[in-house]
Parts: sequence; structure tokens; C-alpha cells
Amino acid sequence: MEAQTIIKQHIAKTATLTDDQFDYFFSHFKRHSFRKGQVVVSEGERVENEFFVLSGCLKAFFINDEVKMYILQFAMPTWWTSDYDALYNQSRATINIDCITDAEVLSISNQDREKVCQELHQVEHFFRWRTNKGYIAVQKRLVSLMTKNTQKRYEELLAQYPQLYDIVPKHLIAAYLGVSRETLSRLYLAHK
Amino acid sequence: MEAQTIIKQHIAKTATLTDDQFDYFFSHFKRHSFRKGQVVVSEGERVENEFFVLSGCLKAFFINDEVKMYILQFAMPTWWTSDYDALYNQSRATINIDCITDAEVLSISNQDREKVCQELHQVEHFFRWRTNKGYIAVQKRLVSLMTKNTQKRYEELLAQYPQLYDIVPKHLIAAYLGVSRETLSRLYLAHK
Repeated sequence: MEAQTIIKQHIAKTATLTDDQFDYFFSHFKRHSFRKGQVVVSEGERVENEFFVLSGCLKAFFINDEVKMYILQFAMPTWWTSDYDALYNQSRATINIDCITDAEVLSISNQDREKVCQELHQVEHFFRWRTNKGYIAVQKRLVSLMTKNTQKRYEELLAQYPQLYDIVPKHLIAAYLGVSRETLSRLYLAHK
Repeated sequence: MEAQTIIKQHIAKTATLTDDQFDYFFSHFKRHSFRKGQVVVSEGERVENEFFVLSGCLKAFFINDEVKMYILQFAMPTWWTSDYDALYNQSRATINIDCITDAEVLSISNQDREKVCQELHQVEHFFRWRTNKGYIAVQKRLVSLMTKNTQKRYEELLAQYPQLYDIVPKHLIAAYLGVSRETLSRLYLAHK
């Protein structure tokens, strides 16, 4: 499917744009073909863009002092990703984003998003609901981490991303759950 | 300070409304005087409103199967609170919100917020940025919980809410951090 069609259908679920309005909004996006392993956002650098995934899978992650990797998000097709703290506050990235697989991605700059939000009320409406949904997803993850055991969190992850096991290496799924690879293997066997 | 002035100043930081537009927006809010301990959102019930705190302090929390309380948020003056998952998805509350102190609060219904967002572009702009900031705050809390030890999280909490110790009982601060009261006392003494 064409990039334009994918994002048009995605936006149409939330906002009502005329074809002309959509074409104008779409003209602010750039298209990127990223290779597996390519870095999109780097800790310590300025963040100018947010990204909409057309195909492939990205991960947002950080590494703490003890060189342990924590995964914040897997970004699958029709998901948005960026370091939003850095993007919105015009500060430097505190996380990294890279590509788990080859990926086709659209980007829009912070400046252009704000400009089009001001020009087109329905685009502002779209982004308000996009962030509302993101807020709920992050809060659910927080509640899950506060209260649920690894088994439950593993089952939630499978329900949220049913195709994850075919795409993402096991050590990254372990890093998302915050468990060792050995624990993950036990959960996998218990679940089968 | 008048309720109207407090929320007007709060909104003016993000959006530009004429006096008439603000008065129209404000006419959709209801004012409530809640007593300490009063319940505002109850697990299992429908959620129709979100709340803007004028004075006092509320807490959003839930209790798991082992009857342990987890605190998601302390809502202080000029903070917004609700069960947003239930509010946005028109489902039943999975958390509780009640008052830690007597509190003056404004409420607006989901339906009225959507109506005014559609009527006034700047109100939609305000709520987009309100949620953007909420998203960043929840994500920071998630990162903190994933990677930082209790001492660091305690220091972050004090930095975020410097006045918290004067307002909130110690056992609730412990429930926010996910530690026992004894651990909290040790952190408190170590920090002094």
C-alpha cells in the first residue's frame, strides 16, 4: 500500500480532512527507508522530528549506568514514535530509537506539526487524540509494571502485539519486560 | 483567588482565548467543594468528568488483589485528574480518586470538552498540550520506576512536589513510591 494511503486511513479514524487538506498536511512529511540497525534518535542529540511507521519495527530504548538495556516501546506499522520529552521541550534526547528490521517511515518536524495544527483545526484534533491514546497506553504500562507479575505482563504484551514473536529477537522482548532471557524462555514454554 | 482567575491564568500559558471565548468555555465547568476523604471517581463506575484542582490535594489510586494500595498520582492545585482510560473510552473506572484534604475543584464533562474543542480551535490546542505534558510526566515516571532505585525516586518526588511532605500523610508517600513506611522513614532521615 502507498505511504499516502496508509497514513490517510490512519488519520481518517480520528479526524475529517478534505482531500486538499490531507494533501497539504501530507506535503509536510518526508519519507525514509531505514536499514535494520539504523539509528533514528540518539541520546544527547537534538530531536527535531517525530516518526510514523509504515512498515518494519523500531524500538525506543535507553541504557543505564550498569549497561543494562530498557525498552520503552516497540513501534510497529501505524505507530508513532519519538523522544517526546526532547521534541516538545526542545531539549536533548534522553533515549535512543533504532530499527529492529528494515523500515519505511514518515517523519514530520516539530515546527511543521505546530504550523499545520494552527492552520487546520482537524489536524490539531487528530494530534490531540493521538496523544490521548498514547497517554492511556503509557499509563497502562505503568500500572502493569507497578502491580503485575512477569507472567501477567508477558501475556499482556502478547495480546497487545500478537505478531511480536515473529519479528523481534527474544533478548529484546526480555528487555521490554525487564527480565532475563532465561526467565523469558520459561514464560514462553509455560504459555505454549 | 477566584476559581475563574486560577483556570484562566492556567489556560493562558498554553492558548490564546478572547474574554468572550474564555467565559463561554468556563460556563461548561461546575464547581465542587469536596471534604477530606470524599470519593470523586470509584472503581467499577462510569466516568463522566475530568477535574481541575483549585485548592487541596487529591489522589488517584488502586488496590490490588492483595489489598495493597498503589498511588498513580497526587493531584495538586492547577493539576488535572480523572480515570482517562475510562473517560475517553466510555468504559468503567479501573482506579479510584479521592480527596487527601478538603479541596475546591472544577469539573467538565467528556461531552462538553469535546463540544467546546470542536467549537473553539484554541480550546482544542489547550487540551492537546495539556495531554502532551501529561504524556511526558507519565513516561518519566515509567522510566524512573524501570531504572531508578528508591532513593533516587524519593528525591525526584521531593523535587517534583516540594510541598508534598506538609500535605500528604507518610503512608501515602510510601504507597506512591511502592515502599514500606519503614523504608520511607530511612530515606527521609538520610535526606535531611
